[in-house]
Amino acid sequence: MLSGGKFMATITFIGAGQMASALTFPAFENGHEVRLVGTPLDRDIIDGLRRDNFHITLKRTLHNGIHYYQVEEMRDAIDGADAILGGVSSFGVDWFAEEVLPNIPQNVPLISVTKGMIDQEDGSMQTYPEFWESTEAGSKLNINAIGGPCTSYELADKDDSAVTFCGRDIETLRYLKGLFTTDYYHVSLSTDVVGVECAVALKNAYALGVSLAVGLAEKREGIGVLHYNSQAALFGQGVREMRKLLNLVGGGDDNIVLGAGDLYVTVFGGRTRKIGTLLGQGLSFEDAMAELAGVTLESIVIATRTARAVKKLVTAGKVNAADFPLLLHVDAIINGGEPVNIPWKAFETETVL
Amino acid sequence: MLSGGKFMATITFIGAGQMASALTFPAFENGHEVRLVGTPLDRDIIDGLRRDNFHITLKRTLHNGIHYYQVEEMRDAIDGADAILGGVSSFGVDWFAEEVLPNIPQNVPLISVTKGMIDQEDGSMQTYPEFWESTEAGSKLNINAIGGPCTSYELADKDDSAVTFCGRDIETLRYLKGLFTTDYYHVSLSTDVVGVECAVALKNAYALGVSLAVGLAEKREGIGVLHYNSQAALFGQGVREMRKLLNLVGGGDDNIVLGAGDLYVTVFGGRTRKIGTLLGQGLSFEDAMAELAGVTLESIVIATRTARAVKKLVTAGKVNAADFPLLLHVDAIINGGEPVNIPWKAFETETVL
Repeated sequence: MLSGGKFMATITFIGAGQMASALTFPAFENGHEVRLVGTPLDRDIIDGLRRDNFHITLKRTLHNGIHYYQVEEMRDAIDGADAILGGVSSFGVDWFAEEVLPNIPQNVPLISVTKGMIDQEDGSMQTYPEFWESTEAGSKLNINAIGGPCTSYELADKDDSAVTFCGRDIETLRYLKGLFTTDYYHVSLSTDVVGVECAVALKNAYALGVSLAVGLAEKREGIGVLHYNSQAALFGQGVREMRKLLNLVGGGDDNIVLGAGDLYVTVFGGRTRKIGTLLGQGLSFEDAMAELAGVTLESIVIATRTARAVKKLVTAGKVNAADFPLLLHVDAIINGGEPVNIPWKAFETETVL
Repeated sequence: MLSGGKFMATITFIGAGQMASALTFPAFENGHEVRLVGTPLDRDIIDGLRRDNFHITLKRTLHNGIHYYQVEEMRDAIDGADAILGGVSSFGVDWFAEEVLPNIPQNVPLISVTKGMIDQEDGSMQTYPEFWESTEAGSKLNINAIGGPCTSYELADKDDSAVTFCGRDIETLRYLKGLFTTDYYHVSLSTDVVGVECAVALKNAYALGVSLAVGLAEKREGIGVLHYNSQAALFGQGVREMRKLLNLVGGGDDNIVLGAGDLYVTVFGGRTRKIGTLLGQGLSFEDAMAELAGVTLESIVIATRTARAVKKLVTAGKVNAADFPLLLHVDAIINGGEPVNIPWKAFETETVL
């Protein structure tokens, strides 16, 4: 549809969480019709938005003119859409497969902000786009995803944000970029779906790892005392292990650019830093989780899944456990009840040309 | 020399600045005889240390038992040494070549903490170890260097720190590691001198680049307001450009682990962050430097040299300027008087497998 000389598309957002809702800013400002559909968990969010456009968890007022839908109205919201944005969390991936994918017309591209991977029985890792493509409804769809360092609050505040849209078809990606890119939302494109999704999923586990140093320094010297040598050492080790994992899943090496950027933003990004800091201070995993009661911690899910995959590959003789000391220590802390005891000496390397 | 069953070596530190002085902690605690020699610029530091072991710029009390020397006493300090640690800044590299190298016996290994590179007429980059090896006195010596994310204050405070010792001979590196490694000072080894030194030198330019985002956010929303999306976007772009520069100088790709870790610590490391923040707030380079009067800014030197080398290579048709938009923008700000205007769209990429 043309409106005032400018192409206007209709974009339906499914999931009204913080990230999807933040993405309504660039979409609406580009002149598109924006339809925001809540999941069954977003009922209060949609009620609030209908009242006064204020998003109760993003804590920002969305643009006036966005259309809001409860989950029962999803089909109406999808009707006539030019593109669908999927905005559920890792915990809504199955719901999205069962309740949303069958409602999406085959000619309408889907782009998802959900970050994460699923570990398989054989130790291989599956991206969410791959998982959705493996379902009957998803197999007929054009499924794309968004990776890269971008937190919702800062996007809503128009802080310059650089992301990567990934998918199988570069023309689709260019179309989707055209819908969303603005002077503060910067979009790279990549058909290396596994590489992009792996890089941005893994960083969760390593952000928790880096945050352990924040808590360790506070345990030693008092709350609020910051040291960066130890954080940087863990950051570097995280980059090293992420490069090895990227190689393992067949993702391009240049995706470490995304992994490192996303690791950076996540280390400063609230919940993951908080749990890592509490663990570093000496709290048990149970006590740390209790302090964060009620918040969803995708980093825990991702760290657990990645470690499980790596451990299976170690058992199968396909990878060396010594290549992943930080990941395995994070796993031992959150899933094995072990105290924090960073294996510093295991990070030391010897390179002889 | 054996002392209480433990091997004790004699290590002579030349340069009593913050980094070299911080390294006296692990060396002394390992039971070595430590001799700390000031440069002509360190006269007050040595006077202070002789009085009460308090280091006036590191602001820490060194171990009682370290021997202090003024520059005139350098030969006495070198006499009988098992290893020399070179601790001058980038600005002391020539002095070190002329006044120190001729005094070092050929069989005594040297390890330097000076970070940086020198750009040549043809656009190639030379590491400091290579520069020293190119002098007559240096050509006969076994010259090694320390890279990696480690700030002096935090090392002095025993925050866990991971560094890499690099040099041509792995046996020498293992010997030097034995002298310095402790339960908080973690040492990797590499014979890829160019890769290690390049990675840790480049990060200075990019740390300044990332810090621009700190100032831009403050300019927009007020002093103290922090946003991380834009920092992370610049961090990722810095990693991307550093990987390309590493490739250009023939350094191993895995050195990006050091580059990323060192970039992380430097973004939070005081002077470089301060100048980047002031520039991002809108100050001219001259005004920003005036606010930091009297401090040495190696990041400015490194950014200038690296950009100069890259520009020569662009002119020679050997590299593409479009691959280094952040470096060239930082250079334009500090050497061309240009205002901060991050070339965000130049960072966007398209990857088609």
